[in-house]
Amino acid sequence: MKKFLDENFLLQTDTAVELYHNHAARLPIIDYHCHLNPQMIAENRRFSDLTEIWLGEDHYKWRAMRANGIPEDYVTGNRPAFEKFEKWAETMPYAMRNPLYHWTHLELSRIFGINKALNPATAREIYDECTAMLQTESFRARSLMMRMNVEVVCTTDDPVDSLAHHRAIAQATDFPVKVLPTWRPDRALMISDPEAYINYISKLEEAAGIAINTFDSLVDALRIRHDYFAAHGCTVSDHGLDTFYAEDYTDSDVRRAFAKLRSGQPVNAREADQLRSALLYEGGRMDAEAGWVQQFHVGPLRNNNTRLYRSFGPDAGCDAILDNNFVVPMNRFLDRLDREGLLAKTILYNLNPRDNELMVASAYNFNDGSVPGKMQYGAGWWFLDQLKGMENQMNCLSALGLLSRFVGMLTDSRSFLSYPRHEYFRRILCNMLGNDVENGELPASELPFISRMAENISYYNAKSYFGW
Amino acid sequence: MKKFLDENFLLQTDTAVELYHNHAARLPIIDYHCHLNPQMIAENRRFSDLTEIWLGEDHYKWRAMRANGIPEDYVTGNRPAFEKFEKWAETMPYAMRNPLYHWTHLELSRIFGINKALNPATAREIYDECTAMLQTESFRARSLMMRMNVEVVCTTDDPVDSLAHHRAIAQATDFPVKVLPTWRPDRALMISDPEAYINYISKLEEAAGIAINTFDSLVDALRIRHDYFAAHGCTVSDHGLDTFYAEDYTDSDVRRAFAKLRSGQPVNAREADQLRSALLYEGGRMDAEAGWVQQFHVGPLRNNNTRLYRSFGPDAGCDAILDNNFVVPMNRFLDRLDREGLLAKTILYNLNPRDNELMVASAYNFNDGSVPGKMQYGAGWWFLDQLKGMENQMNCLSALGLLSRFVGMLTDSRSFLSYPRHEYFRRILCNMLGNDVENGELPASELPFISRMAENISYYNAKSYFGW
Amino acid sequence: MKKFLDENFLLQTDTAVELYHNHAARLPIIDYHCHLNPQMIAENRRFSDLTEIWLGEDHYKWRAMRANGIPEDYVTGNRPAFEKFEKWAETMPYAMRNPLYHWTHLELSRIFGINKALNPATAREIYDECTAMLQTESFRARSLMMRMNVEVVCTTDDPVDSLAHHRAIAQATDFPVKVLPTWRPDRALMISDPEAYINYISKLEEAAGIAINTFDSLVDALRIRHDYFAAHGCTVSDHGLDTFYAEDYTDSDVRRAFAKLRSGQPVNAREADQLRSALLYEGGRMDAEAGWVQQFHVGPLRNNNTRLYRSFGPDAGCDAILDNNFVVPMNRFLDRLDREGLLAKTILYNLNPRDNELMVASAYNFNDGSVPGKMQYGAGWWFLDQLKGMENQMNCLSALGLLSRFVGMLTDSRSFLSYPRHEYFRRILCNMLGNDVENGELPASELPFISRMAENISYYNAKSYFGW
Repeated sequence: MKKFLDENFLLQTDTAVELYHNHAARLPIIDYHCHLNPQMIAENRRFSDLTEIWLGEDHYKWRAMRANGIPEDYVTGNRPAFEKFEKWAETMPYAMRNPLYHWTHLELSRIFGINKALNPATAREIYDECTAMLQTESFRARSLMMRMNVEVVCTTDDPVDSLAHHRAIAQATDFPVKVLPTWRPDRALMISDPEAYINYISKLEEAAGIAINTFDSLVDALRIRHDYFAAHGCTVSDHGLDTFYAEDYTDSDVRRAFAKLRSGQPVNAREADQLRSALLYEGGRMDAEAGWVQQFHVGPLRNNNTRLYRSFGPDAGCDAILDNNFVVPMNRFLDRLDREGLLAKTILYNLNPRDNELMVASAYNFNDGSVPGKMQYGAGWWFLDQLKGMENQMNCLSALGLLSRFVGMLTDSRSFLSYPRHEYFRRILCNMLGNDVENGELPASELPFISRMAENISYYNAKSYFGW
Repeated sequence: MKKFLDENFLLQTDTAVELYHNHAARLPIIDYHCHLNPQMIAENRRFSDLTEIWLGEDHYKWRAMRANGIPEDYVTGNRPAFEKFEKWAETMPYAMRNPLYHWTHLELSRIFGINKALNPATAREIYDECTAMLQTESFRARSLMMRMNVEVVCTTDDPVDSLAHHRAIAQATDFPVKVLPTWRPDRALMISDPEAYINYISKLEEAAGIAINTFDSLVDALRIRHDYFAAHGCTVSDHGLDTFYAEDYTDSDVRRAFAKLRSGQPVNAREADQLRSALLYEGGRMDAEAGWVQQFHVGPLRNNNTRLYRSFGPDAGCDAILDNNFVVPMNRFLDRLDREGLLAKTILYNLNPRDNELMVASAYNFNDGSVPGKMQYGAGWWFLDQLKGMENQMNCLSALGLLSRFVGMLTDSRSFLSYPRHEYFRRILCNMLGNDVENGELPASELPFISRMAENISYYNAKSYFGW
Repeated sequence: MKKFLDENFLLQTDTAVELYHNHAARLPIIDYHCHLNPQMIAENRRFSDLTEIWLGEDHYKWRAMRANGIPEDYVTGNRPAFEKFEKWAETMPYAMRNPLYHWTHLELSRIFGINKALNPATAREIYDECTAMLQTESFRARSLMMRMNVEVVCTTDDPVDSLAHHRAIAQATDFPVKVLPTWRPDRALMISDPEAYINYISKLEEAAGIAINTFDSLVDALRIRHDYFAAHGCTVSDHGLDTFYAEDYTDSDVRRAFAKLRSGQPVNAREADQLRSALLYEGGRMDAEAGWVQQFHVGPLRNNNTRLYRSFGPDAGCDAILDNNFVVPMNRFLDRLDREGLLAKTILYNLNPRDNELMVASAYNFNDGSVPGKMQYGAGWWFLDQLKGMENQMNCLSALGLLSRFVGMLTDSRSFLSYPRHEYFRRILCNMLGNDVENGELPASELPFISRMAENISYYNAKSYFGW
């Protein structure tokens, strides 16, 4: 019987052990997509207790707690910190086989050095021990990142963001981790709520320093901010989409549609699609011209629980997975950029696993030989960021594309404790490769190449793809 | 080499053996959804031969026989009982790897004590032996249920059903199995055939004892019958849907639409969707107000073979799996009920396995902390009720939700011989948990909890969820 | 550690070894669907070098090379043969876990007797050695087929094709391989480009020897060619579809629509669907009346990269997987034929693996007991023709249908080197069956039947299904 979470956790063969420990494990972490709050890094946040750092913003845990029958008061409500933690500890054993079970214990073990199962009997002791550690210097935000061997982190930022925290972080001389912004212009496409949209346009005017009265000036303003982000070291964009938009439109179509929107009139469905198509295209063009990497996260159905949306807001843990058909507009969108020589390096992520294969098949239509692995199929995202989800993503990428060119793992997390997910990923990767070698599905004679491949997917591919 | 179907069938590790034999195996069976004919229980049916009890209503077997080149005469036709059985025995080896192969041999072994492979060479002997046993008291309908340690069974019943058989069964003093009706109002939503619908409304009028001339009186009539079912111990509803309906409508919309329908005029597509949306909502409200559990089975495409539909009728074994996109109306439907405080405990089943993940993700948007496991993702259904289908359902539920809170297995069967499917399920469950422990993916130190988890999913979760 | 690609490659148990080596391995190959160029067989092509035979038409390899950063010049461009090969050799290790890695090394091993890993260090030596062999008699087109124990091959041919090469091949007395045409009338349904369509109609007029001015004469012309194909030994049709078409239409609907099209006017969407529905139906009727097998390949999204489509044309390696919903028209199409007694033996293939289950479920609605395995779920196709894709196809067919009646593998290839894919398939099949027996999921007592099943799926089922 293998021991839970020991040094050979998830490594089923000797080859896997060798690949992981001698190759993948020691490399730094490039976390090229996450939702860390840059202010917390700038301020080098000290966390008051384990509840704050662990449960404060984690809608994965909230969902599990609600499903376990825990009242909202203990989830997002105002109960005292330890009471909330107790409910989480009570939920923990019930989350066996959920990724939260592995994540939680990896974080306890790798970050806090605690190798006990969290459950009601150990709750108090673990809470106190961790909370005490969190008071020390080595558990402040920056120390956590440095201790986990993090080299680069990309946060997720709105075009109107001042990036003041990123500037402050860049100036810190004692903090070697690169913390870069990511250009995420989702709100510039959210035209379904005209009032909120006009409000956003005002903010964008202010940030860009120009008036936005036409579609062309909207694009100008975005480009001004795009340049501003570039000047702050940004080289990556990201888009959260329900589907791709690739409608035909003329310049006058989108100018007229934007004019309506700007003047407070509603646009119809076709006009809305044309506007979104134009904005998505213009964003792709900016990324290509700037030599950036563009990312697309496709497929959530958000804020399904009106009750919690009203009382709590978005990201409450009430999001699901869409089932729409988007392969045609996805290919049209990429094709237009490719045809015009404007297709940036691209990473495509899907939330519905039934679309895994079509994502790889579509992405690989647009590799042009300019860069190895130009078109990427992104790591298992959100609901798919779990053991079998990651295996499926890598098996799918392997069967329909080139696993060897994969830029690998990212946390996508809001938490400073999530870096062990890179360890988790590397173990799964090495285990797959190890199994293949030991089963005679890959040649043992090629082990030097396979070792390098494990290293590349863990670190070097991302380093060279993003150019850091 | 492991022996076929022996006591450690499907149990690959010592931990699995321990979990199954010392925990899951001995618990009673709660079969909370099936299609048994209550009349057969009321009459304590004695089956004339193995063909009747095994092939009489089993469209799974019919499909396999047709695919094996057996003419319809031997399938649903009039050939003598043993000739039909011979054709089934001839088909049996060709069904290797199909769930029918395991089901058939489990039933032979666990119910009849016969541990031979069924094939043309053993057909006569097995037929005669089983048919002889079927003449004895211990193979009549009630004895079969009692011998299999069945505690509760929920049949599937139309609102117009008198429930006379359920009353008769409840009065039997020597039969401890609870046989409860399930409220299945599908015909109240089948408005696409106006003539049949009006005919059904007449039956409903009669059953409810009121005239149904308006939408409101239709709802009243359904509520009268809902109360009647409740008075007969019913606490569970079920709905067979092609998709969810959650259109916007006003009271006057549905009143007008129902008036058209009632007067024999056709309703248009939008009116039909509004009526279905209103009826689905009203049903959900009734279930919530009565404190019931509501079930939704989504996704069959029925009666695809017109030839057999005309000669035989529905449930001939000519049903397929739909591929429509229903996640948006499913979430809207659940959200409306949740928002109004009218969301009953809910179990969602899908027939298309490509929708597994979105089912769990959607269900879990509506857990409200009131009851552990309030929103359930149901066990592998119909085409998915097989080894890998069950593993996939449990792996999906594990990765996106809480397996520990799962209410577990049901037979969904028309047959008195199907109870070994609970054994099959429990073995698969225990094997998954056992593998995880032995692979170091779950901590061996938590085995007491894991043992209880195996017991809960096999029995106790359903017992407390349904309140029996 | 198992050796890569050795005699027990992919065979994990003793039973698998026994099933493969003593049963499946030695049987001839029936390749009932491929894209070999019949001219090359008629001429008994001698290949100039390894680049020509391996890279000349293989868009799978081209995609991999582009993804590996190889410029188009080395892919479909004009670089010298060895330079192209070098780039392929450089790509090879990066394709580990892609089916190309197994295919390539199987072909090197089984056809050329070379058991080295292809990589930059071995490129020159392998190229020279293979190129030298290709100059010899035993590496010409026909010898390759004979050496691989090929018994029947079905090419893929347009109704206007003269089949001259097939005639020539049939007359060759020293070439025992049956090379039969397949009726693939896709261009008769491609009405979205009216100009190309009218052009095609002219060719069809010429081939059929009648004028085509009406829908009825179009059907007559197709029937003349269908008979012509039959006279050349054709007994199989094939259709490449994005979806199924099963619209309602009257004779006058389609006559009018065809008249518009014939006169150069555009047809609207509904007319186009009716025409396609009528043509698909008429094709099914012809196949049934002739006693043929009909095949449907559903789901590619082709030519997504406009840049490469313009410079290179179709089949450049820029095709993806569609995500449309087609289960309803598929069932309607099959049902109409069945109802009219015109449903030929049918094989259904899907490209999107999310549709695996609904394909089997739909196909099995129309088994009528006339022929074992009448309705087939076809082997893993294109992107799904890989280890896990084939396992998934067979597991899905097993769980929802009868694996035992499966007609098995085909190469679907343009290459004379692809026959080891049958070996690959048989190993995977035998391994699955072997695992089941050793795990106690199939009875060891039934091994004689299981051995015959392995043989049937490898060879005999196809032989009897197609009637060769």
